[in-house]
Amino acid sequence: MTQPTLYTVFSPALLHLYDVSNTIVVVIDVLRATSTIATVLYNGAREIIPVDSVERCIQLGKELECITAGERDGQVAPGLQYGNSSFEYPRDFVEGKTLVLTTTNGTKLLHMALAKGATEIITGSFLNLSAVCEHLKQMKKNVILGCAGWKDRVNMEDSLFAGAVVDAVKDDFAINCDSSRMAENLYQLGRNDLYGFMKRNEASHYHRLTNFGLEKDIRHCLTPDLANILPEYYNGKLVLQS
Amino acid sequence: MTQPTLYTVFSPALLHLYDVSNTIVVVIDVLRATSTIATVLYNGAREIIPVDSVERCIQLGKELECITAGERDGQVAPGLQYGNSSFEYPRDFVEGKTLVLTTTNGTKLLHMALAKGATEIITGSFLNLSAVCEHLKQMKKNVILGCAGWKDRVNMEDSLFAGAVVDAVKDDFAINCDSSRMAENLYQLGRNDLYGFMKRNEASHYHRLTNFGLEKDIRHCLTPDLANILPEYYNGKLVLQS
Repeated sequence: MTQPTLYTVFSPALLHLYDVSNTIVVVIDVLRATSTIATVLYNGAREIIPVDSVERCIQLGKELECITAGERDGQVAPGLQYGNSSFEYPRDFVEGKTLVLTTTNGTKLLHMALAKGATEIITGSFLNLSAVCEHLKQMKKNVILGCAGWKDRVNMEDSLFAGAVVDAVKDDFAINCDSSRMAENLYQLGRNDLYGFMKRNEASHYHRLTNFGLEKDIRHCLTPDLANILPEYYNGKLVLQS
Repeated sequence: MTQPTLYTVFSPALLHLYDVSNTIVVVIDVLRATSTIATVLYNGAREIIPVDSVERCIQLGKELECITAGERDGQVAPGLQYGNSSFEYPRDFVEGKTLVLTTTNGTKLLHMALAKGATEIITGSFLNLSAVCEHLKQMKKNVILGCAGWKDRVNMEDSLFAGAVVDAVKDDFAINCDSSRMAENLYQLGRNDLYGFMKRNEASHYHRLTNFGLEKDIRHCLTPDLANILPEYYNGKLVLQS
């Protein structure tokens, strides 16, 4: 039997090179959008509405009377209530609620995947690594691991996560994709101490967030399965896959 | 003193994200354009004229009465005389001659770098690794390592070469670039047996060329310093840097 294919796309600016239709796209923005998404849904939020601009976020927040959240360049965006840290969203705050979320890179990639006709869009982060991998193995469909990167530049942490997925699911897929192999090797180098690997390699996002005092966030976002659920993008909203 | 910057660009489709002006661009197309370029100039050819289409290659070949060479999808392009293998260009054939060369990926990136205002464009391959690194260290200018990839997709061998350069010159540059760090780690993993690394990781180009019976070419192109000269693109031609 022919195995489904798996490709890793290191930047949204490379997504056009791949056939996204009939494909599950895993949107990856480890620091920090897809980590926050996993946490918020894990902690019982009803839904997250991802939007691509701060203006739209403010507008929807008023219309729906819900929490507005998001960051630009690593900090709470002006006009929004909350930022992009998992620690801002404990269960007693978000349970049953709706969030409107805008982020620099993750939301953009999600909308691109939708526009290109992905059959299913889920979000991945180390916090829900196992849930993502189990799902991909069960579905037996073509997969694209879409790294959000940083303003279309390739980044370390999204590549590491792609590598973690490749490492876990590779026996179930036909992988004729150098990016996937590069990511897998990178992950195997760093897996025993992802934080140390990021620091030692002077990853750009490690520097950016450390400058904002967010070491704790980085460590959290690099820890597997702390919020091990599967967020799916459906009908304009991110919800727990049922 | 501020050090010059160094960035690695994994695909021509990402070059627009970087400031190419006032920068030395190293065009990297290990399998096989930039390896062939190093070999042909090392073996005494007067110059190589890179062009982006087979038609232009044939036309210029007639006008200048010179050797026409190039490949499409890994094989000699229809209408041209020679392909993209170093072994086709021994000294007794190419010495003093002019080649017109068209390739799938390398030529395209070279013309992009030119259009974007690079101050200097050189070509890099394992065959001339040391010459490239020595030059970059001497010049003390901003550098972009431009991987040609395969039809804009990221590939293993160009990334490995970028990593080899990063490994050799990193003390002389400010490197705030995750791609460079990823390439460096990849190279450190593979450096002791680049061919085995390509094979073990099922690199797409390893498969493609092996299917054409070109294992010998791959091994040759992964061997450091066999044609250790510095090709520079100047006035529409690749020549030995004087």
